[in-house]
Amino acid sequence: MLTGDRPTGALHLGHLVGTLLKRVELQNQFQTFIIIADLHTLTTKPNKEQIAGLKERMRQQVLTYLAVGLDPDKTVIYQQSRIPEVCELATIFSMLISVPRLERVPTLKEQLTNLHLDQVSLGLLSYPVLQAADILMVKAEVVPVGQDQASHLEVTKEIVQRFNNNYGRVFPEPQAIFSTEKILVGIDGQAKMSKSLDNGIALFDGPDQVKAKVMRMYTDPKRIRATDPGTVEGNPVFIYHDLFNNDKYEVADLKKRYRMGKVGDIEVKEKLASALNNYLQPIRDRAEKYRKADYLDDVLDSGSQTARNEAIKTLNQVRQVMGL
Amino acid sequence: MLTGDRPTGALHLGHLVGTLLKRVELQNQFQTFIIIADLHTLTTKPNKEQIAGLKERMRQQVLTYLAVGLDPDKTVIYQQSRIPEVCELATIFSMLISVPRLERVPTLKEQLTNLHLDQVSLGLLSYPVLQAADILMVKAEVVPVGQDQASHLEVTKEIVQRFNNNYGRVFPEPQAIFSTEKILVGIDGQAKMSKSLDNGIALFDGPDQVKAKVMRMYTDPKRIRATDPGTVEGNPVFIYHDLFNNDKYEVADLKKRYRMGKVGDIEVKEKLASALNNYLQPIRDRAEKYRKADYLDDVLDSGSQTARNEAIKTLNQVRQVMGL
Repeated sequence: MLTGDRPTGALHLGHLVGTLLKRVELQNQFQTFIIIADLHTLTTKPNKEQIAGLKERMRQQVLTYLAVGLDPDKTVIYQQSRIPEVCELATIFSMLISVPRLERVPTLKEQLTNLHLDQVSLGLLSYPVLQAADILMVKAEVVPVGQDQASHLEVTKEIVQRFNNNYGRVFPEPQAIFSTEKILVGIDGQAKMSKSLDNGIALFDGPDQVKAKVMRMYTDPKRIRATDPGTVEGNPVFIYHDLFNNDKYEVADLKKRYRMGKVGDIEVKEKLASALNNYLQPIRDRAEKYRKADYLDDVLDSGSQTARNEAIKTLNQVRQVMGL
Repeated sequence: MLTGDRPTGALHLGHLVGTLLKRVELQNQFQTFIIIADLHTLTTKPNKEQIAGLKERMRQQVLTYLAVGLDPDKTVIYQQSRIPEVCELATIFSMLISVPRLERVPTLKEQLTNLHLDQVSLGLLSYPVLQAADILMVKAEVVPVGQDQASHLEVTKEIVQRFNNNYGRVFPEPQAIFSTEKILVGIDGQAKMSKSLDNGIALFDGPDQVKAKVMRMYTDPKRIRATDPGTVEGNPVFIYHDLFNNDKYEVADLKKRYRMGKVGDIEVKEKLASALNNYLQPIRDRAEKYRKADYLDDVLDSGSQTARNEAIKTLNQVRQVMGL
């Protein structure tokens, strides 16, 4: 299995609910590779100041993986740009797919719009092919993808078919796992917790930060006074209670009183802050344990070496069946 | 200096006159890298049967280089696909150049026409970027190019400027050496000796083959009998005499008698065959000496290792200035 992230640094509760918990579960079923896709980042952020701090962001990211329970003995965490062989495989694959085909990949148009670009760089156009190489380098059989990435996996499948037909069977056709990815509402009530919207609770926020953020959370906007009956459904505070408060009796009681106008926001939020801090404490404890630059570098070094060995094996096999 | 060829196998007199002799001369002025561009070949010939025999063709090509006087102590001969780092550098460069810019490269349209392709593969579109990586990997300062390749070198220069401006100065801007490349007429009188037209004399043709080919050479078509006065200018037989016959007195005498209708084609051709065989003998002798598969493989292995070491050094420097 291959999955991964851009190197954005420390992650937040939205990532935890969306993908990280799922990965922790899947690492027991599949040999798992997690790519920190720094070359991917260059496709939209190639400037030096956009790259700055990458090393530290990668450390934070590795730390997050370990803190949420990913185990480096089961899960290979690696940096994309340390595997030159993946780029050679992508070069070989680039002979097997046409430019118009790649221009039809829907995410390309979205990115052009989102980034206000008037011209596609070759790197942006080629990215689905590099991604195919990432996936096929480790011969991943399953790839957890969001719906937005499904079109990239189609490119991978086409490449697999053409390669295997033309040169001989080397690659499995990877299957998508469409996780019913849960999207966590932001503390401001926006549909999605997102770093760029600054509406998140980071996994490494301390107890006081968590409390401060919870205390300013968006709740039911129609409820002016604590004695007004409030709405629980779709209310971020109760969504969080449902997800992170292990005391189900307390949650049921708060909901009941909220609906009746018999509890103030402050009590609901203080109990949420306390529940969230309980929930996050084991993550913080593991982070504390692993937060040593040398150790985190070692995890990434050794993961990158393991991934590279896979890559070298695959590229050699590719060269051999092709007759290079 | 970087220059190279597609892996076509043994070369002919046209290559000798066109580029090989120039390379032998330049290897004394520049640290020379000769790339056998097998990934380049894939851009237009990706099928397994088109790749078949590559190893033997590369051996023949290395043998040709050595036979004409290229010296592996001065000239690094290497196989492109053995350097994964060049592909990673190309991936990085692909962020710095737009798709419309590459679509305007004139050779692309020519190839689409020549190959009767209706769609550009990503590999064909990207090739000038991979070529830039080949050139810049070894930090080549001079690149001998035909006029048709000049547009590719422009792409390289644009990439150098953007990379150096964005990340810091790493690459020299390579200069083209536009050799006034001599084009050798084919034995059939066609404008260019070419393997595909089967109108060439291979450098490794034996004395009898050379003689047989010379005896059926195209000469002055207006001259029916040996007693007709003939035209020397533009006559392939005399072009070859001028280039390959060291006995300038004999050539002058033959030309004079040809113009007067006092020499038969047979005498002119027999003397040419004999001159050509003299000319080719040292090449054959060196070929004889080096024609051992193990030795040729060693030359290519060790050249590829040397080139790869350069590539690793350059890629590390690139990663460092970028902050990867």
